[in-house]
Amino acid sequence: MMGVQTKMNDIVYLVIVIGISLAALLGALFLMGSIGKVKVEDEKMREIAGIIREGSMAYLFRQYKVLAVFIVVMFIVLCFTPGLGVQGAICFITGALLSALAGFIGMRAATKANVRTAAEASRGQQPALRVAFSGGAIMGLCVVAFGILGIAAFYVIFKDIFAVITGFGLGASSIALFCRVGGGIYTKAADVGADLVGKVEAGIPEDDPRNPGVIADNVGDNVGDVAGMGSDLFESYVGAIISALLLGVVGFAEKGVFFTLLMVAAGLLASLIGVVIVRALKVKKPQTAFDVGTYLSVALEIIATLALSLYFFDGALWPFWTVVIGLAVGVLVGKITEIYTSDGYRPVKRVAEASKTGPATNILQGFSLGLKSTAIVILLLAASIIGSFMLGGAFGVALAAVGMLSTVALTISVDTYGPIADNAGGIAEMSGQPESIREITDTLDSAGNTTAAIGKGFSICSAALTALSLFMTYAQTVGITVIDVLTPKVLAGVLIGGMLPFLFSALTIEAVSKSANRMIEEIRRQFREIPGILEGKGKPDYKRCIDISTSAAIRQMILPGVIAIVAPILVGVLLGAEALGGLLVGSLVTGVLMAIMMANSGGAWDNTKKHIEASAGGKGSEEHKAAVIGDTVGDPFKDTAGPSLNILIKLMSIVAVVFAPLFLR
Amino acid sequence: MMGVQTKMNDIVYLVIVIGISLAALLGALFLMGSIGKVKVEDEKMREIAGIIREGSMAYLFRQYKVLAVFIVVMFIVLCFTPGLGVQGAICFITGALLSALAGFIGMRAATKANVRTAAEASRGQQPALRVAFSGGAIMGLCVVAFGILGIAAFYVIFKDIFAVITGFGLGASSIALFCRVGGGIYTKAADVGADLVGKVEAGIPEDDPRNPGVIADNVGDNVGDVAGMGSDLFESYVGAIISALLLGVVGFAEKGVFFTLLMVAAGLLASLIGVVIVRALKVKKPQTAFDVGTYLSVALEIIATLALSLYFFDGALWPFWTVVIGLAVGVLVGKITEIYTSDGYRPVKRVAEASKTGPATNILQGFSLGLKSTAIVILLLAASIIGSFMLGGAFGVALAAVGMLSTVALTISVDTYGPIADNAGGIAEMSGQPESIREITDTLDSAGNTTAAIGKGFSICSAALTALSLFMTYAQTVGITVIDVLTPKVLAGVLIGGMLPFLFSALTIEAVSKSANRMIEEIRRQFREIPGILEGKGKPDYKRCIDISTSAAIRQMILPGVIAIVAPILVGVLLGAEALGGLLVGSLVTGVLMAIMMANSGGAWDNTKKHIEASAGGKGSEEHKAAVIGDTVGDPFKDTAGPSLNILIKLMSIVAVVFAPLFLR
Repeated sequence: MMGVQTKMNDIVYLVIVIGISLAALLGALFLMGSIGKVKVEDEKMREIAGIIREGSMAYLFRQYKVLAVFIVVMFIVLCFTPGLGVQGAICFITGALLSALAGFIGMRAATKANVRTAAEASRGQQPALRVAFSGGAIMGLCVVAFGILGIAAFYVIFKDIFAVITGFGLGASSIALFCRVGGGIYTKAADVGADLVGKVEAGIPEDDPRNPGVIADNVGDNVGDVAGMGSDLFESYVGAIISALLLGVVGFAEKGVFFTLLMVAAGLLASLIGVVIVRALKVKKPQTAFDVGTYLSVALEIIATLALSLYFFDGALWPFWTVVIGLAVGVLVGKITEIYTSDGYRPVKRVAEASKTGPATNILQGFSLGLKSTAIVILLLAASIIGSFMLGGAFGVALAAVGMLSTVALTISVDTYGPIADNAGGIAEMSGQPESIREITDTLDSAGNTTAAIGKGFSICSAALTALSLFMTYAQTVGITVIDVLTPKVLAGVLIGGMLPFLFSALTIEAVSKSANRMIEEIRRQFREIPGILEGKGKPDYKRCIDISTSAAIRQMILPGVIAIVAPILVGVLLGAEALGGLLVGSLVTGVLMAIMMANSGGAWDNTKKHIEASAGGKGSEEHKAAVIGDTVGDPFKDTAGPSLNILIKLMSIVAVVFAPLFLR
Repeated sequence: MMGVQTKMNDIVYLVIVIGISLAALLGALFLMGSIGKVKVEDEKMREIAGIIREGSMAYLFRQYKVLAVFIVVMFIVLCFTPGLGVQGAICFITGALLSALAGFIGMRAATKANVRTAAEASRGQQPALRVAFSGGAIMGLCVVAFGILGIAAFYVIFKDIFAVITGFGLGASSIALFCRVGGGIYTKAADVGADLVGKVEAGIPEDDPRNPGVIADNVGDNVGDVAGMGSDLFESYVGAIISALLLGVVGFAEKGVFFTLLMVAAGLLASLIGVVIVRALKVKKPQTAFDVGTYLSVALEIIATLALSLYFFDGALWPFWTVVIGLAVGVLVGKITEIYTSDGYRPVKRVAEASKTGPATNILQGFSLGLKSTAIVILLLAASIIGSFMLGGAFGVALAAVGMLSTVALTISVDTYGPIADNAGGIAEMSGQPESIREITDTLDSAGNTTAAIGKGFSICSAALTALSLFMTYAQTVGITVIDVLTPKVLAGVLIGGMLPFLFSALTIEAVSKSANRMIEEIRRQFREIPGILEGKGKPDYKRCIDISTSAAIRQMILPGVIAIVAPILVGVLLGAEALGGLLVGSLVTGVLMAIMMANSGGAWDNTKKHIEASAGGKGSEEHKAAVIGDTVGDPFKDTAGPSLNILIKLMSIVAVVFAPLFLR
């Protein structure tokens, strides 16, 4: 009788979880429809938006073609991997496809919303904001719903929790890495290239239609900041849930599983409510709407978690507190990131001050700002690890990670809003809209910059906690209870692991500077060879620039991706399971540190430039020139290497978990 | 009877060790005399050299005054530290004084040799080279002889090996840190400031006497590259020997002690022979003489170690092989550093290529070069750790570290030669010597640049191995046999430890950019206010610039130094002995990685600039301007933050060893 009761309960739980996910998807569908209703009258606008959409899709398809080969190879490998087999391999493919699908839908929505945001700007800021945010919310809701549905569905079908979720996670992670790296290279090659020749050499403004690289730059925002970021957070989310399930099922059986699933479902529901609120609010500053929505959904999620904790754990509150720790650290790190990267605070002002003595001092000051910003974030992380572990052991750490990500649907919505607003501004500029429209898109865009910086700090912290709980999952899977850094092999593992984020960053930064160089040469060639191009009479060859970014990104995403998968396997096989554990710890430490440093230095340089533009110095001044150089250095830091490191550390941990049986002696 | 025999042997060993050290000191005395015999006729030369010497000494005395306070406070603290007591505290003071003395003697020799090198250049390259190298050799021989004598003498007097050598090591380390950080800030504040206003703004050449910051720059070479580097390697040397003795005495009693002492004494003798050879060789390129001398002393040391290994370990060869591993890794890392930083190879050429598209791409390419260069060095380190540990356990790792440093007297001689030649060039330029003399000093100077880069790679590796064996010593002292990264407190320790080198680099880089800014303002003021200064009629106020560098360096060396001492104690007391172990591992990993990155990026930027000057682009071209900016960014990387990290990781390990009793529960 008791068993039947439990069984019944399980079904009810699953129905709730799946129901909420489907509701979120319906919400996304509704938003898609509401965006579609906006008409774009301006012919020129439509043309430009068409090229951007076409370029974005062309990139995505070429990327997916390359990834298809990778997926097939991995599928075959996984079929023969002990502990995973065909069923794990199927989950792998599903994870990979859902990750790609989330990116695809997000990008379709974004490329539909960008031009409509520009069009709605003629009716005022509020309608424009609503379209841009709705575009972002479509991806936010889809990413999270896919994640929950995928895990829940496989759990029902296969029941074998290990194969299901590790396979699924590996699929999501590996696609995420390629998308993040490829998208990051694409967007920054275009950005750096277009800026250096356009702004610095030819002296024409940003987003000027005479610049042949300008559309590639806008495409880049979509493939990098939309599709890349979507896959990134999809995999953080999936990774965190996976490790919570694996660690929870060991200690608490189905109780651990359903607490986790219902908690994330509640977070999705809270985010959905947040999305409705943000859309409905009428405010002057977009940031206010985002803040209200975010704090509201966090509050709802806290209440829901409290209830779930009391219900599932017989009145015990520790699961609740671990989730609160995760949420609190997420919010705090967001605030710290803002302090270090927004020009309302001292750090960025000091970089602006240093710009007066030239680019070298600008770069030194910005670089040391990033280095310094790691201190407090790391102390917070360390405290949250100790706190959540003392509360709930390894499962507690995993719950903190899941807690931090529980309202991620809203975070993604706000994050994706940024590049959509940015694109809208580009389209308005390129299609020659009046000043008033451009002002509105600028306001929307600048709100997007702050949210982007905060989003980065958040995704680093969630990546750190997720990687950490995956690391503990790995130890449990491989059956080691001690990873002793006093043994030489573990030490060697820590050193090698610590080095990988350095190597990985070198490869991605170099890829950007290589591709940017090719872009620069092409733009210079067009300026030279196309008659009348700088007078606005000759038509620039946009597609050629798009092609350069596309092929460069796809070619150069492969090596870093392969290293991420092969390195842990190699160390595990050659030096053993403990050494691989050392590698994971080493890469976690330097990966997190480098990611924080790069995100904050990059963000600070960016805002220093904007600060100088808006203040005394102004555009064209010596200090502005110095700040432009700093910003260019920061571009691949914050948008290519930095965010890719998040995925690197998670992917290596998942690879370790999946291939664990290989490393046992 | 056997006991008496052993006793007799011990005395013989000690006599040999002390005898060789005294011979080396006599050698240094002889060199001092030989330099003194060189007469400087040129009045202007003497005047300039006088200001440099005065400025250097003034800095050193002000630095020592501040350190005296620190030493007294620490002395009192140590008297009451369990396990150390008054006797350990006396050793602490001796270590501190010897470290300071080594820096002082080195600086006196260097400021005597610089002007005499310039004077001898009128008689040809060979005599000039001999004076410059002799100046360097004085410090090389003193540093090593002081290290051996100090350890050996205390061993005879006190017999309590723990208190003796940890106290001695702590003294050497803490002084080294302050000297490295202070010297690094001094030299780069002056260098960056003088360059940015002089070369970039006023368009006057380097070392031009019209530039008020130019003498501070030359003083900086002495306080940073001579005194700072001397203290750094003194403490590496002492630290490595300490951990070898502590680990050796446990496993092998007096056998371990005397093998280590005789092995380093043999290395000193081999270096002494190397010094004689370098002075005697008549070659076209100075580098050839250095290479012959270095390889010869390494070969001699290998033979001596083979004999000692056979003698002390009854025919066993493993101690020999660990020393060979250390020597081999040292030589290989030197070669790798050369490949990444010399313009004869592809990496620097690619940075030069990237300079064509401006400073941003120059910096991105140089930065990724540094990141990438960590890969192979780390793999070598990892291999050497595993190898030496498998051969001889923790003692094996310590022996590898000592082996790497065994011929360090010659390494220091060659390294110190660099800034002396650099100074000689400055003095020749400022005193208006003819072109022919300037050419000779330029040749000597450029040889010094390559040796400086190689020396940096070497000191990082030796610091890593030394820190590692100190880490193992710590575990042994505190009595923990397992440091398990699966426990949350150790993990937190690893994260915090990993963060410290980031924070530390931020503070030192910021210190440079802050002080450079003050220097820039002062130089601009003088250009503005002193009439006729740029026409060479008005006399610049050199002393004011020297003062700015001095007080900035001394004020800003304190915080980083205090962090290095306080952070490990705090973590040990709050989170326990295992967490402190985690901290040491974390700081070791990121400290080594950042140090390699900074040294190689900095070296590459420097040589990119020189490469462009010597090739197509030339001075004044756009790519040269870009390269100058890269070089300026690299200055605090390679000469302030990077080298200080070496000491940071060693000092924190020594602090952990010394205060071990505090962390036991």
